[in-house]
Amino acid sequence: MRQVAIVAFGQTPYGDFPELGPKELFAQAFAEMVATADRPFDPGLIQALYLGTLGVGGFQLGQPAALLAGHVGLPSIPAVRVENACASGGFALLQAVCAVASGVYDVVVAAGVEKMRDLSGLQGRYWLGVSGDTEYERLAGLTFAGIYALMARRYMAEYGMEHRHLSLVAVKNHAHGALNPKAHLRRRVSVEEAESAPLVADPLRLLDCCPTSDGAACLLVVAGERAAEFTDRPVWVAGFGAASDWLAVHDRPSLTGLAASSRAAAGAYAMAGLGPADIDVAEVHDCFTIAEILAYEDLGLAERGRGFRLVEEGATALGGRVPVNTSGGLKAKGHPLGATGIGQVGEIFHQLRGTAGERQVPGAEVGLTHNVGGSGGTAVVFILRGGGW
Amino acid sequence: MRQVAIVAFGQTPYGDFPELGPKELFAQAFAEMVATADRPFDPGLIQALYLGTLGVGGFQLGQPAALLAGHVGLPSIPAVRVENACASGGFALLQAVCAVASGVYDVVVAAGVEKMRDLSGLQGRYWLGVSGDTEYERLAGLTFAGIYALMARRYMAEYGMEHRHLSLVAVKNHAHGALNPKAHLRRRVSVEEAESAPLVADPLRLLDCCPTSDGAACLLVVAGERAAEFTDRPVWVAGFGAASDWLAVHDRPSLTGLAASSRAAAGAYAMAGLGPADIDVAEVHDCFTIAEILAYEDLGLAERGRGFRLVEEGATALGGRVPVNTSGGLKAKGHPLGATGIGQVGEIFHQLRGTAGERQVPGAEVGLTHNVGGSGGTAVVFILRGGGW
Repeated sequence: MRQVAIVAFGQTPYGDFPELGPKELFAQAFAEMVATADRPFDPGLIQALYLGTLGVGGFQLGQPAALLAGHVGLPSIPAVRVENACASGGFALLQAVCAVASGVYDVVVAAGVEKMRDLSGLQGRYWLGVSGDTEYERLAGLTFAGIYALMARRYMAEYGMEHRHLSLVAVKNHAHGALNPKAHLRRRVSVEEAESAPLVADPLRLLDCCPTSDGAACLLVVAGERAAEFTDRPVWVAGFGAASDWLAVHDRPSLTGLAASSRAAAGAYAMAGLGPADIDVAEVHDCFTIAEILAYEDLGLAERGRGFRLVEEGATALGGRVPVNTSGGLKAKGHPLGATGIGQVGEIFHQLRGTAGERQVPGAEVGLTHNVGGSGGTAVVFILRGGGW
Repeated sequence: MRQVAIVAFGQTPYGDFPELGPKELFAQAFAEMVATADRPFDPGLIQALYLGTLGVGGFQLGQPAALLAGHVGLPSIPAVRVENACASGGFALLQAVCAVASGVYDVVVAAGVEKMRDLSGLQGRYWLGVSGDTEYERLAGLTFAGIYALMARRYMAEYGMEHRHLSLVAVKNHAHGALNPKAHLRRRVSVEEAESAPLVADPLRLLDCCPTSDGAACLLVVAGERAAEFTDRPVWVAGFGAASDWLAVHDRPSLTGLAASSRAAAGAYAMAGLGPADIDVAEVHDCFTIAEILAYEDLGLAERGRGFRLVEEGATALGGRVPVNTSGGLKAKGHPLGATGIGQVGEIFHQLRGTAGERQVPGAEVGLTHNVGGSGGTAVVFILRGGGW
């Protein structure tokens, strides 16, 4: 397979931007990607756009990718929407990587955008439920927080975890997010605050849940042999894997792990010829705090039933053995669905180039991203290799 | 680039199926693809699913691809939704081809599904409008028929075409559709009937418009070197091209051609090393009769301003120089949005293998498909080569 490199990244802040629609958010991320590339380049070189978006609110349900390509001055290039709920961004990058690897294109953009914050309560409940199983979950009244609450409750029963461990995930990711100028929630929280936050879906409390965020992110993805046109410090796509699972959790044999994540990780490790012990830094899909604990185990960073010990030991905090969600994660950085998987790779892009500022993991050479659709119906994992700093 | 072959095809009839939902439609197409493959194969060999769907009606707006993969017994494989409005199927196939060409997968399914017929009037108007420009067209009241009516009116003014020529397209495609057991509208119509049909959007009358159809279609797409496991008569992907255009027609320099189609065709011809004169049979995107006239010109089958002469001369009818829409086209076969681009390739698959029955174009060796998103916001063209019959 032809080598593929990531050579530039742009991202809006994540947050609440009533004055910005999807076009403006996308244009802002795109412009930053162009402006911050190590070497100036002509955006006219871009041959295709892969856009991850659930299209929340229905701003443009049909072919939004072409609409947004035109909005940044590229009305002619092939542009396509890729959708796998909250994993739309990661799957958009996957299509971009395959297209470049095939030799069809040399220079493409993988992007994501979501406008979450101008929905009414009724619309919001509708859109946030569309990624579970519509027939058996959403229409029956099961919410996303409810699904992850079931997982948390079962995990606690099987492995003796207490809610306090979930709060430690929130405390860690908020501490990381406080260092990220583009995070939605830039404030530290205490264990006490997390433990006494309002209950959302027992046992999950408000600080166990990620916010709903507006945001967009863009990656410039190029053929390996063209990387030097853009930078001396490319980040290489070393491996990737993707998988699915039953959408409805009642069809799954276990509630204490996401099988799609395990399968995607196995594929990514095999392609990269690496294992969990090689990972220096990771961005995982912590839509709820329990999701980060499950991710540790599904990705092989912890043994089954031992994930909550990792956060207790501080292994996944900045300064720990394998820092996880240095960006703040979905929990504190925010979760603009389609943008999330792209932004995760952007954080690793910075980490592997030594440009992560206060969040830098010293000497990071291999990074991992983990992006989940809905409650585990789909997942995609990337392993990235840097070393150019 | 690694060679890519299409080795099996399944499709539901297109039509009005109140008793079948998207799951049932997809399963029926998938089962036919498996059952009609030249050599029996284990569906467990399938490594990924690319699903084109606009998701009309919102049956499963988030990650429907994984839902449908599970429904046919493949809950673990990576499955992703690809959306470009009415070109969703063609773009799903494009992702599938790139993934196989890259070497990442060897055996994948490209599919499409749409459930159009159980929408109320209000829902229907909403969903059918979502692929134009939401801000400047749909919310301003411009319908799809209205957009194509503008194109038809302008074309008539520039080139002297009369409405009678549009009726000839309807007459031809209905005649073809009458030969297709899976067509939605299986009856011939006369010029007189087409000329006196109720006006929908001046100058377009009812018989100028394709129906809204339920339906699904599946293609088995494999690495060239594995084709012989499935058939002795593979159909080869010789070339493809894709492109975009401004969604809002007011931004385009011309109303009498779809620039996205011209660009996509140029790319496909270049990759295949072929030209319009090499095409033996084509399926083009005739959502309205005027769209077929424009397609002739955009694809190079006729000179600019001469497309309507082609249908007048009978060149594009069965028995003519280059039969177009032998399936009946969107006009008579039907138009289940996400399935359309997949079904088009399926018709060419049959034509290039000599299995098109009463619709067979004798000796067809090279075929073309042309799938358009919305009113030309996106387009994708495939050139396929057979010769195995």
